[in-house]
Amino acid sequence: MTELREKANTLIEALPYIRRFAGKTVVIKYGGSAMGGPFEQVILDIVWLCHVGIKPVIVHGGGKEISSTLSRLGIEARFVDGLRITDAQTMDVVEMVLAGKINKRIVGMFGKHGVKAVGISGVDAGTLQVKKKEYQHGDLGQVGEITTVDTGLLTSLVESGFVPVVAPIGVDEKGERYNVNADSAAGAIAGALGAEKLVLLTDVPGIMRETASGKEVISRITADEIRELIADGTIYGGMVPKVEACLGALESGAKHVHIVNGEEPHALLLEVFTDKGIGTMVLGGDSHA
Amino acid sequence: MTELREKANTLIEALPYIRRFAGKTVVIKYGGSAMGGPFEQVILDIVWLCHVGIKPVIVHGGGKEISSTLSRLGIEARFVDGLRITDAQTMDVVEMVLAGKINKRIVGMFGKHGVKAVGISGVDAGTLQVKKKEYQHGDLGQVGEITTVDTGLLTSLVESGFVPVVAPIGVDEKGERYNVNADSAAGAIAGALGAEKLVLLTDVPGIMRETASGKEVISRITADEIRELIADGTIYGGMVPKVEACLGALESGAKHVHIVNGEEPHALLLEVFTDKGIGTMVLGGDSHA
Amino acid sequence: MTELREKANTLIEALPYIRRFAGKTVVIKYGGSAMGGPFEQVILDIVWLCHVGIKPVIVHGGGKEISSTLSRLGIEARFVDGLRITDAQTMDVVEMVLAGKINKRIVGMFGKHGVKAVGISGVDAGTLQVKKKEYQHGDLGQVGEITTVDTGLLTSLVESGFVPVVAPIGVDEKGERYNVNADSAAGAIAGALGAEKLVLLTDVPGIMRETASGKEVISRITADEIRELIADGTIYGGMVPKVEACLGALESGAKHVHIVNGEEPHALLLEVFTDKGIGTMVLGGDSHA
Amino acid sequence: MTELREKANTLIEALPYIRRFAGKTVVIKYGGSAMGGPFEQVILDIVWLCHVGIKPVIVHGGGKEISSTLSRLGIEARFVDGLRITDAQTMDVVEMVLAGKINKRIVGMFGKHGVKAVGISGVDAGTLQVKKKEYQHGDLGQVGEITTVDTGLLTSLVESGFVPVVAPIGVDEKGERYNVNADSAAGAIAGALGAEKLVLLTDVPGIMRETASGKEVISRITADEIRELIADGTIYGGMVPKVEACLGALESGAKHVHIVNGEEPHALLLEVFTDKGIGTMVLGGDSHA
Amino acid sequence: MTELREKANTLIEALPYIRRFAGKTVVIKYGGSAMGGPFEQVILDIVWLCHVGIKPVIVHGGGKEISSTLSRLGIEARFVDGLRITDAQTMDVVEMVLAGKINKRIVGMFGKHGVKAVGISGVDAGTLQVKKKEYQHGDLGQVGEITTVDTGLLTSLVESGFVPVVAPIGVDEKGERYNVNADSAAGAIAGALGAEKLVLLTDVPGIMRETASGKEVISRITADEIRELIADGTIYGGMVPKVEACLGALESGAKHVHIVNGEEPHALLLEVFTDKGIGTMVLGGDSHA
Amino acid sequence: MTELREKANTLIEALPYIRRFAGKTVVIKYGGSAMGGPFEQVILDIVWLCHVGIKPVIVHGGGKEISSTLSRLGIEARFVDGLRITDAQTMDVVEMVLAGKINKRIVGMFGKHGVKAVGISGVDAGTLQVKKKEYQHGDLGQVGEITTVDTGLLTSLVESGFVPVVAPIGVDEKGERYNVNADSAAGAIAGALGAEKLVLLTDVPGIMRETASGKEVISRITADEIRELIADGTIYGGMVPKVEACLGALESGAKHVHIVNGEEPHALLLEVFTDKGIGTMVLGGDSHA
Repeated sequence: MTELREKANTLIEALPYIRRFAGKTVVIKYGGSAMGGPFEQVILDIVWLCHVGIKPVIVHGGGKEISSTLSRLGIEARFVDGLRITDAQTMDVVEMVLAGKINKRIVGMFGKHGVKAVGISGVDAGTLQVKKKEYQHGDLGQVGEITTVDTGLLTSLVESGFVPVVAPIGVDEKGERYNVNADSAAGAIAGALGAEKLVLLTDVPGIMRETASGKEVISRITADEIRELIADGTIYGGMVPKVEACLGALESGAKHVHIVNGEEPHALLLEVFTDKGIGTMVLGGDSHA
Repeated sequence: MTELREKANTLIEALPYIRRFAGKTVVIKYGGSAMGGPFEQVILDIVWLCHVGIKPVIVHGGGKEISSTLSRLGIEARFVDGLRITDAQTMDVVEMVLAGKINKRIVGMFGKHGVKAVGISGVDAGTLQVKKKEYQHGDLGQVGEITTVDTGLLTSLVESGFVPVVAPIGVDEKGERYNVNADSAAGAIAGALGAEKLVLLTDVPGIMRETASGKEVISRITADEIRELIADGTIYGGMVPKVEACLGALESGAKHVHIVNGEEPHALLLEVFTDKGIGTMVLGGDSHA
Repeated sequence: MTELREKANTLIEALPYIRRFAGKTVVIKYGGSAMGGPFEQVILDIVWLCHVGIKPVIVHGGGKEISSTLSRLGIEARFVDGLRITDAQTMDVVEMVLAGKINKRIVGMFGKHGVKAVGISGVDAGTLQVKKKEYQHGDLGQVGEITTVDTGLLTSLVESGFVPVVAPIGVDEKGERYNVNADSAAGAIAGALGAEKLVLLTDVPGIMRETASGKEVISRITADEIRELIADGTIYGGMVPKVEACLGALESGAKHVHIVNGEEPHALLLEVFTDKGIGTMVLGGDSHA
Repeated sequence: MTELREKANTLIEALPYIRRFAGKTVVIKYGGSAMGGPFEQVILDIVWLCHVGIKPVIVHGGGKEISSTLSRLGIEARFVDGLRITDAQTMDVVEMVLAGKINKRIVGMFGKHGVKAVGISGVDAGTLQVKKKEYQHGDLGQVGEITTVDTGLLTSLVESGFVPVVAPIGVDEKGERYNVNADSAAGAIAGALGAEKLVLLTDVPGIMRETASGKEVISRITADEIRELIADGTIYGGMVPKVEACLGALESGAKHVHIVNGEEPHALLLEVFTDKGIGTMVLGGDSHA
Repeated sequence: MTELREKANTLIEALPYIRRFAGKTVVIKYGGSAMGGPFEQVILDIVWLCHVGIKPVIVHGGGKEISSTLSRLGIEARFVDGLRITDAQTMDVVEMVLAGKINKRIVGMFGKHGVKAVGISGVDAGTLQVKKKEYQHGDLGQVGEITTVDTGLLTSLVESGFVPVVAPIGVDEKGERYNVNADSAAGAIAGALGAEKLVLLTDVPGIMRETASGKEVISRITADEIRELIADGTIYGGMVPKVEACLGALESGAKHVHIVNGEEPHALLLEVFTDKGIGTMVLGGDSHA
Repeated sequence: MTELREKANTLIEALPYIRRFAGKTVVIKYGGSAMGGPFEQVILDIVWLCHVGIKPVIVHGGGKEISSTLSRLGIEARFVDGLRITDAQTMDVVEMVLAGKINKRIVGMFGKHGVKAVGISGVDAGTLQVKKKEYQHGDLGQVGEITTVDTGLLTSLVESGFVPVVAPIGVDEKGERYNVNADSAAGAIAGALGAEKLVLLTDVPGIMRETASGKEVISRITADEIRELIADGTIYGGMVPKVEACLGALESGAKHVHIVNGEEPHALLLEVFTDKGIGTMVLGGDSHA
C-alpha cells in the first residue's frame, strides 16, 4: 500500500510538467550512435509523451549502419578533408539504410506499443527542400543543405494523430536526392514547426565545462553563451555541428533546445519532466523556460 | 539518480492503463461524507485523469452540509420512516447548499489546478428530467426519480474541453425542482453517456465479505453476484441504494462500476491505474474489464 | 378578423428591429430589486428575443434575498462607511443565494418556456477574473473588481444554443472567491463580448432630468453628457455606480447601453423594438444607434 | 403606453407558434392569380417567417401574365379538351415570363426588404426532373410531370441562408424543357424536402362546404376526408388539381398542407401563427398538428 | 495503336496548363453575337475546364434576341446618340430575354453534358449592385453602372460545385432593376472574385494591329500598351468598351484577360491550354502570365 | 491550326471517361518487372489521373532489385519448391530495397512532376496487418498473408491531397515484419478502399486466349469465366497469382480490375480512357462497367 501511494505521488508530481507541455510539438533527434543504447526505453518515453498530449516528431540518423552496409557491399569510401564523399551509389545505400531500415524499425517499435507512427523521408511530399552543399576543398557529392521545410505533410500527419518519423534525406528542385545531416534536419524541422522543444539525444551527457572538481554538465545556457564557448574553444570537434543545429533551431522558431544522453535510461522523460533535467537546456530568446 | 529512474519507471508502468482509457468518459460520484476526506487530493487525481486524455464528469452529494445549514436556519426536520421530507423551504436550502456552495467549491479547486470546470445542476438545460418519487408510507415532498438524462449540455461542455460538475437536482415537466439521490444521478448520467466507468467515492473500502480471517474487500464482482448478496443479506443498509445505482448504471449503458474509499489518498488513481485496484469493481455484461 | 389583422400588423411592424438585431449579443442585467417585479414577463420577453435570433446573456443580482438569508442565519452585518463587509461566512451565504437559489430560479423559468438556459457563476471556467477591491477607509473583505472576463465558456454556451445566466461572483489567481457588483459584471461581460447592447433592468424609469413640467426620462444621451451630469450632480447616489457600469461597458466594447424600468411590463421588448423606447439609451462612440 | 403594451402582448402571444416552427422548412406556393393581390404584404409575411427562424421555399405560378404575353406576341392559343397545347414557341414564352419576369420580380421584392432571395427554375442544377405528360385525347406538347426532385441546389441555398424562389419549369433526360403545374411542383418540392408545411396561397378562402347557414370554410380536414369529398363531388373543377397536389405532398413526405386565400391581407401569417387559422389545414398521416 | 498513342500524347501535353490553372476561377463572358456560333462546342470547352479543376463563372449577353423580341412585341426603339433608351417596358423585355430565355438555354446545355449549372441574374441575392448611369446628352432610362459585386451567392454556388451563369441585370438600393453591359459585368465579377482569368468570347479574333503584311492579332499586350492604342486610335469603335472592361477587371483584381473569337471552334480551350493561344492576352500588373 | 483543333478534339473526347471516374479511387499495382519499362511515362499517366480528379494509390513491387542487392551482399538464396525463403537478413534487404529505394524513387518522380506523393510501407501506422504464411512443404520464413488493411493512414493521406505509394511489407501482432506479395497487397488495398478500379501493370498484354489466328488479348472477362480458365489450364503459371489477386480484390469490394502491359507507352491512360482499352478488364459482380 505504501508503495502504491508512492507511485500515485510520482504521477501527481508530474502534473505541472504535463500541464505545461500538453498540446505542444516536441522534435526529437534520435539516432546514429544512440540507436545502440536502450532503444525500446527511448520509444516508451516518447509513447508516454504522446499519451499526455505532447505531439512528438522524430528525426533519426544512422551513421554506423550506413558504414557497415557500404562495407558489406564493397563500396569504397572516399573522403575530402576527412568528410565522406557521397557519390551516386553511396547515396543509394544511404537512402536504403535510413529510409528502408532504421526508419521502419523505429516505426515498428512504436506500433508494438500501440502508437501509430508513419515513417517518411524528406523526399516525401517534398518535405525537405535542399540545395547541394558547397565545400571549398572539393566536391562532397550528394550532400545537401536545407533551404526550406515544407511542413504540409508533417502537419497533416500530426493533426491526424500519427507520429512522424523522418529520415534526413532531402530533394532539390530537379528531383535529385541528397544526404542531410540529421541534427540540422531536426533543427530545421523544429524551427519550421515552431516547436516547443528540440531534444537532441546524443552519446554525451550534454554540453560540458571544466570545473575545479572535474568536468560537469551545464544545466542551462543561452545561445549567446554558447557562441562564446565555441569562440574560446570550450566547445569543439563533433560538438560544434550539434550546437550549431541548436542555434539554428532557436533562430528559426523553436522555443528551447535540449542536449541529453540518449544512452541514459529514460533521459528524455527526466529532461522534460523535471526542473533541473539531466542534460543541457539551451534557452531561446525570451529565456522564460 | 536512482530515485529519478524509479520515478520514470512509475510513469512508464502507468502507460497500459493510460492507453486503455484515453478518450473515455468516466463519471465520478464524489461527495457527501467523502468531502470530509482528502478533498484536494481527490481533485488532483481527477486533474491527472484529464491530462492523460480521460474525460471526467463529476456528480457530488452534500448530505452533512445540508443538515447543518437546515439546523442553522431553524428549519425543523420531518421524517417518514426515517426518510427526510423535502418540503418547499427544505428544497430551497438543498438547492442553495448543493448548487451554490459545494458545487462551486469543487469548481474552484479545479480552477486552482488549472482545469476549467463548470458547475451545473440537473435543472440547467433540463439535464436531469425527474418525476416525483412515490413512497407508499407517506409523502416525501420534493424528492424525485430520474426519468431521462438530456445529455446535450454535458456533451457540449465535454467537447469544449470543460469538466462538468453536477449538483443532483432535477426538474419535472412543470418546471418544479426536486432533490435527487446523488448515487442514482451519477448512475443515470453514466448510463446515458455510455461511460467507460462509474466510480463511486464512498466512505467504505468497497463491497465487503466475511472470511475466516475477517472482513475483506471483494475486488471484482458481477451484477448477478451482487443481486445474490442483496438477497442473502450480505449487502444491507445504506449499501443497498449504492449498489442499486451501480446496477442501474450498468443496465443503462455504463461499462463498469467501481466502489472505492474516497478517504483513502489517491484511491481514484490507484483504482483506475492498477490491475487489482483497491476497492470493488463491478463488471458489466461482457465481463472483459 | 379586424383584430387578427391588427395583430398581424403589429408583428410586421417589429420587422425592422428584428432585422437590425438578429444574430447580435444582448447582455441583460436583471435583478436585485427588479426580481420583485413581473418576473415571468421579463423571462418571456427574453424568450422572444431568442426566437428572433438575438443571443441574450443574463447577469443577475440578488441584494434583498442575500440580506434576508443572512439575517435568518443570524450573521451580523458589519459595515464601513455604509458599505457591507463581506467576510468569509457572509461570502458563503452570498454564493449560496446567488449561485444556488436566484440563478437556478431564473434557469427554471426559462426551462418552463422551452428555452435551455445554463446557470453559471463567474467562478465556473474562471469566467470572471477579479482582484480584491481596495477601499481607502477600511477592509471590505471579499469584494472584488473584475480584471478580465474569460469569454470561453460564455461563447461556447451561446454557440451551442444555450442562454447563459451568470451569478456575479469572481475568482482571483489563488482560487479565492469574491462578491462582484452585478452592474459592473454585466458591463464587463458586455464589453468583453462586444455586445450590441447592454440593458440594465432597474427599478427606475431611466436617467431623469428636471424640466419645467417636472421630472422626465432622458431618451437618448451620450457618454460625454453623462459625465457632465455626474459632475454637476444631476446624477447622484445609487445611480452613479449604474451609469459608471454603462460607461465602462461602452469603453470596453459594447455598442449601446439601455437603462429601463424592469418593473414595467415588457419594458425590455418595448425598449428594444420601438424607436423611442421607454427608458434611457446611452449611445456608444459612433452614435449611429 | 396602453397601445405599446398591447403590441408587446401580441408579440408574446405569437411565441408558442414561433417555438413550434423555428428551423422548419415551409414551402409556399404563391401565384398565378394571387399575384394580383397584396403582393408586398405577402412578401413581408414571408420575411417575417425568415426572421423567426422558419426556412421558406417559394414556388410561383404566372398564368395570367403568360396569356397576355402570348397574345401580345400574336402566338395563337391552341387547345385539346380546353387544355392549352404548349408548343415550342409557347414554351419559350412560358419560360421567359416565369423565369425571367415573375421570378425576378419576387426576388427583387425580397431584396427591398433585406432578404437575399435567389430565383431559379427547375432547370437549374436539374432540380425538377420531368417526363412528358401523356394525355389520352391528344398531344399537349411540352407539358411535364415531375419524376424526381433533385434537392441539392435547394438545400445548398437554404443552408447558405438564401430564400429559393422556384419557377415551375422542368427538364427531361435529354435536356428538353417542360411547363409544369405550379401546385404540383410545390407539392413535389415540399415532399422531397420533408417540409413541415406546404401552404397554397390561392384565390379562394379554402376548401368549402355547404351548411344550413351557407358556405363555410373547413378549418381542418384529413387526407381521407378529402378523397371522400372528391368522390361525392363536393370538391370539383379547378379545386381538384389543387387538393391533389396537397395529397401528393403529404404522401411524399410533407407534414401538413394549408390552403388559404392569398388575397386576404397577411393570410399566411394568420394561418401559421393562430390555432384556428383562416383557411383549410389538411392534416398529414400522424394527425398531431 | 499509333493514333491511340498520339491521343495519349495530346492529353499528356495539356498537363502543365492543367496543373497551372487547377482550382482557379475563370470568368467567361459569352454571348451576344457569339451565341450564333458553335454554342455546344463552347459549352463542352467549359465542361472540360470544370473536369480539370478550373472553376468557371459564366456571364452572358443577348443583344440580338432582345432586339428581335422587342420588335415582335411592337415596342418602339428610341435612341439618344445612337444609344438605346431602356424604358420600363423595354427593361421588362430585356429581363425576360436575358434571365428567362438565354440564361436557361445555357444552363440546359450544361445539364445535357452532366454539369450542374445555376442561372441567376445580378438581382438574385443582390449580386450586382448598380446605380443609374448618367449620360450627358439625355436620359438613357434603366441603364446601370455597377457599384459593388456582392460575391456571397457566387461563392456559395461555386463552393457547392455548381457553375454560376449570370444574366447582366443589376439592382439599385431601392430595388429598381437596370440593364448592365455584359462586358462590364464580367469584368466587375472577375475583379471581385480575384479571378485568375477573364476570357471575353467575342466575334473578332482579338486586338488587331496593321503590319506590312496586313492585319494580325496581337498575342500579348499590357494594360499600358492598350491605353496607348486607344489614344492613337488603333483601338476604336465597339472595341473600346470591351478593352475598357478588360482594364477594369485587371484594376479591380483579376490576374489576366483574354479576348478570343468565340466563333472559332474550341477557341477557349486553345487559348487556355496553349502557350501562344489564338487570341489576345492582356497581361496584369505583375506580367508573369 | 488544324493540328490545334485535333488536339482540342482529343481533349473533348476524353470528357465522358473523365466524368465517369472523377473523385474515384484507383489502385495501381506498378512494379517488379514493369519498372524496367517506360518509368517516367507511367508516372505522367498517373499525374494526369490526379489532375482530372481521380485519386490514385500506388502499390509497387521490386523483385529484380531485391535479387541483385542480395547477390551483391553475398546473401545465399535458399528455396523450398522454388519459393524463396525469407530469413531475417533477407527480410532486412527486402525492406531496404522496397521501402528505401524503389518507394522513394517513385515518390521522387512524382515530385518532379509537381505531385506530392508520400511513400509508406505497410508497417507505417499498421496499414498492412499480416500473419505468417503457412506452407505445407517447408517454412518460407518471414512471408506474410494479409489479414486486415487498416485504411486510416491511406485515407488521411488521400483526403489531404497526397498520393500514397505503398511498399508491400506487412506487420503482425507482435511487430514482426513480413514480405507480402505485391499483387495481393494491391488487391487487398483496392478491396478495403472500395476502389473503383484496380489496375495491374504487368509485363504481359493481359489475359490471353488461343484463337484460330493465334493468341489474342481477352478484352473483357468475368470472375466466373476466369475461374473456368484456371480450371481448364488456360491460365497457368505466374499468371495464376495475378488473377487470384484480381478475384480477391473484386470479392472484397473493388469494382473492376484491369490487367495491362506496363511496358506499353501510356497503357494506363489508354485502358482507363478508351472504351475498348488495350488490356483485359475483369468485371465485378454487377457487370455494369
